[in-house]
Amino acid sequence: MKEGLLLVISGPAGVGKGSVCKVLCSENPNLYYSVSLTTRSPRPGERDGVNYYFVPEEQFMQLRDEGFLLEWARVHGHYYGTPARRVDEMRKEGRDVILEIDTEGARQVRRNTKDGVFVFLLPPTMQDLLKRIYKRGTDTPAEIQRRFAAAYRELEELGHYDYAVINEEMETAAAHIAAIIVAEKCRIARCQNVLKRLKEEGGNIDLSFNR
Amino acid sequence: MKEGLLLVISGPAGVGKGSVCKVLCSENPNLYYSVSLTTRSPRPGERDGVNYYFVPEEQFMQLRDEGFLLEWARVHGHYYGTPARRVDEMRKEGRDVILEIDTEGARQVRRNTKDGVFVFLLPPTMQDLLKRIYKRGTDTPAEIQRRFAAAYRELEELGHYDYAVINEEMETAAAHIAAIIVAEKCRIARCQNVLKRLKEEGGNIDLSFNR
Repeated sequence: MKEGLLLVISGPAGVGKGSVCKVLCSENPNLYYSVSLTTRSPRPGERDGVNYYFVPEEQFMQLRDEGFLLEWARVHGHYYGTPARRVDEMRKEGRDVILEIDTEGARQVRRNTKDGVFVFLLPPTMQDLLKRIYKRGTDTPAEIQRRFAAAYRELEELGHYDYAVINEEMETAAAHIAAIIVAEKCRIARCQNVLKRLKEEGGNIDLSFNR
Repeated sequence: MKEGLLLVISGPAGVGKGSVCKVLCSENPNLYYSVSLTTRSPRPGERDGVNYYFVPEEQFMQLRDEGFLLEWARVHGHYYGTPARRVDEMRKEGRDVILEIDTEGARQVRRNTKDGVFVFLLPPTMQDLLKRIYKRGTDTPAEIQRRFAAAYRELEELGHYDYAVINEEMETAAAHIAAIIVAEKCRIARCQNVLKRLKEEGGNIDLSFNR
């Protein structure tokens, strides 16, 4: 069984990571969307165990301190984290795992894993990003200002990623990520077992062919 | 205008490079298939200017010696080469260029260009490759034996490529190459201009936002 990919989808708050991942996962049933833990309150429409596992801060800290999290971060006053074991299990079963996480979490995954594929989601324009942050309507003006300034700083992170995908139209962005998954599975580093098999087989044929 | 990709599709003789490239190009009109020069005779169904430019050896040598070829190789007694200028022109117009060439030609392109994307086409099994070489029916038994031995040796080249695509079913192989093209356009190294534009724009917004 070939191990599944670990795909990290990150980018500034408000860029639309959630919507793009939703489209991506609905169209690619082999993907396993890793549900994060968070200490923040659910937004309207969000469901426990689907969008996040909503947990009290005390429980979050305990899981973190006992080493159950692949990454964790404090973002705009709330904690977020990825349960590690489920990610490993799914990959061993050959499922590709999607982590939809903030840039601080992505930094930790980059440190802790050798073979993640890192995708940075970009807004088509910064004006557009500002509009999306406004539209969300769940934040105070000061928080919007803070988020926009943070997003601007986060652009500097881009150089540490493998791919940049512009989220102008979420179906297109999801299709681009799906193409990245296909391409990554074709990368030479992931095809050594195929090469080995062909060489073994070809070596045997060669002998009988020369008889 | 963003420069088009240079995509090198290579692999052993008989693996089906031509068929896969034909499907790929028919489904992706932005691709420009670079027609090679050759000194060999046309096979049944091959047309001058479509499959190859069929030229006498003397003319080939002259073009080669005057530096008009991006790469050239002698394969199984015949010369093959890629006219350089057309490739550059097409890329500058934003077209992605496909070079369908043997592994020796690919080695030269790798030496001569910085930014090519190298795809190695593999047979599903070596038995299958042997069958395909037989089926072609244009070669003598000794030539078939030589081609198969060469194909076996060429597997060693794989490590110098970026991607391996298995040609079990040519539509699937073409779809995988199409995905590689999409993914390569999203690679961070090719998105520096987007980052620059967003930073300039965001910097200006930031000022007015703080007023």
